[in-house]
Amino acid sequence: MATIININAEQQSTSNTLDDLHLYFAEDLSQVEATLTAHLASAASLIPEVSEHIIGAGGKRLRPLLTLSASRIAGYRGAHHITMAAAVEFMHTATLLHDDVVDGSDLRRGKPTARKIWGNPTSVLVGDFLLGQAFRMMVAAGNLATLDVLSNAAAVIAEGEVMQLAAMRNADISEDNYLRIIEAKTAALFAAAAEVGGILAGASETEIEALKSYGKNLGIAFQLVDDALDYGSVNRVLGKNTGEDFREGKVTLPVVLAYRRGDQTGRAFWERAMSAQIDGSNDYEADFEMAVQYLQTTGALQDTVARATHFGERAKDALALFPPSDMRTLLIQLSEFCIARAY
Amino acid sequence: MATIININAEQQSTSNTLDDLHLYFAEDLSQVEATLTAHLASAASLIPEVSEHIIGAGGKRLRPLLTLSASRIAGYRGAHHITMAAAVEFMHTATLLHDDVVDGSDLRRGKPTARKIWGNPTSVLVGDFLLGQAFRMMVAAGNLATLDVLSNAAAVIAEGEVMQLAAMRNADISEDNYLRIIEAKTAALFAAAAEVGGILAGASETEIEALKSYGKNLGIAFQLVDDALDYGSVNRVLGKNTGEDFREGKVTLPVVLAYRRGDQTGRAFWERAMSAQIDGSNDYEADFEMAVQYLQTTGALQDTVARATHFGERAKDALALFPPSDMRTLLIQLSEFCIARAY
Repeated sequence: MATIININAEQQSTSNTLDDLHLYFAEDLSQVEATLTAHLASAASLIPEVSEHIIGAGGKRLRPLLTLSASRIAGYRGAHHITMAAAVEFMHTATLLHDDVVDGSDLRRGKPTARKIWGNPTSVLVGDFLLGQAFRMMVAAGNLATLDVLSNAAAVIAEGEVMQLAAMRNADISEDNYLRIIEAKTAALFAAAAEVGGILAGASETEIEALKSYGKNLGIAFQLVDDALDYGSVNRVLGKNTGEDFREGKVTLPVVLAYRRGDQTGRAFWERAMSAQIDGSNDYEADFEMAVQYLQTTGALQDTVARATHFGERAKDALALFPPSDMRTLLIQLSEFCIARAY
Repeated sequence: MATIININAEQQSTSNTLDDLHLYFAEDLSQVEATLTAHLASAASLIPEVSEHIIGAGGKRLRPLLTLSASRIAGYRGAHHITMAAAVEFMHTATLLHDDVVDGSDLRRGKPTARKIWGNPTSVLVGDFLLGQAFRMMVAAGNLATLDVLSNAAAVIAEGEVMQLAAMRNADISEDNYLRIIEAKTAALFAAAAEVGGILAGASETEIEALKSYGKNLGIAFQLVDDALDYGSVNRVLGKNTGEDFREGKVTLPVVLAYRRGDQTGRAFWERAMSAQIDGSNDYEADFEMAVQYLQTTGALQDTVARATHFGERAKDALALFPPSDMRTLLIQLSEFCIARAY
């Protein structure tokens, strides 16, 4: 099997695309960072320590950027977008802390997880704290409609996670079901992050709906590309977290497609792989190689990215009703960045 | 050592006191229950299943009763007290689910915990869902001031839990520190539950402050009595959860007092007991007997209840500014019930 290990030129240019957005919002983002830090202060010193480990780990701040962008494109002139963007990032961080406990993950982006360093109890409680702080910040911004959207997202995310847990290790779930899960666990926060930007700006219902749709479709595309990247994606780009989903028996779209398309032997392989039997086995490397081979021969990785591209296109079209602007161009580039990561 | 195993007459009469309150709010409580059930509906069927296991386990509904009582004594005539009372109970349930994960508890009120039945991941996620739902319900009630109080409480509770975790197995913490922890992890929600009742009713600042103070002091008293009951309290009333704190190495006020008052041998005993060395040891029963003996000879149980009584009195006095009424009498009885449980 041909293996191309390649942090390629394409990736270079896409990371520049996100740089443009970071540059555009440099001022706002630094205020968001300051807001995050200010709200980590606590009499319990573990709280800032653990939170900074994960918040400071160089995330892309995609969700806060959605809030900032959506409020900008809808013409917002106030200051609450900073608070809301920071609250959204806290919500996201809380879910990361809890997800790592739920999945028993020791690594995130190649670094030890908080639960690995400080244990599950601390990760659960610091996540709870961040969720509480997120709501405090939203309340301080004083807008009930945004609170409605984000509290709804909080419940939906947890529902999505529970659905994923129930489907855990079951390679037999349908593509529709899988999409329903990631729409809840991942895309709901992207959608809410963009929607609240529009609400803050007092945008029309149609515009708010467009921003929400942009966020939702972007979120689905983003998750599907993540799913593909876990197996090196179509070009076999090996990243820091390659193989984490496989090791944890997490059924993602590549597996759903490869399983459905597979023959008897292929399906038996996936059933064994998604069961608890592979993690810790001596043949883990060989199993992973086999998985990638199955994913490539069935076209599952290619088509996961094709599905992602479809949602990325829908995200872009959702913005078509806004007149052309630098901001709109940047949001379209953001959607392209989410897809281009796959290559 | 004299041992009195006694579900005594006193307890009988105190449980009647809580019955009075339940009877007074029978109509409202049944609406609260209906609201709880309605908000457990989910596409993820595990969510109602797990939630009902814990919500239906026959809790006393103390916190929702505080919201109902506070709104009543302050003259509220609307319907949002039901929603807020239910939201408060969801917040409480979320913390129970997470606490059991944090403490690794297998039993709660003598029944298997959710995490024992469904595992830690499910308990974490269902807790998150309930917290999200709680906020949705509060948002639906449409009152920013109550949202402020309860989101604040959510963060403070988590902070208290983190502080307790940091103090875990450390018999050497001061009484002041211990009180700070339980004020955050337990009393903050009691205080908030009462405060939001006053806010809903549009009570004066002084009245709202009084209700908050009632809730806070009641919460501290309640927790201290719980602490004493875990060791059978002063009369050695053995309950379903006797010894759980001891087994988990959880430092509570009885231990703080006994340790401070103890001699060399006593302190060495507590250091060993609070370390991980007792759980699973063959001599667990003997160790627990020894612990109770130390607690009794140092007067630690007696004085934990005395401290609780002090806070119970403060709770009652906080209500003195309200004119006499059935409701005020019931709230005073509630405070007495919280203390009388100790006997």
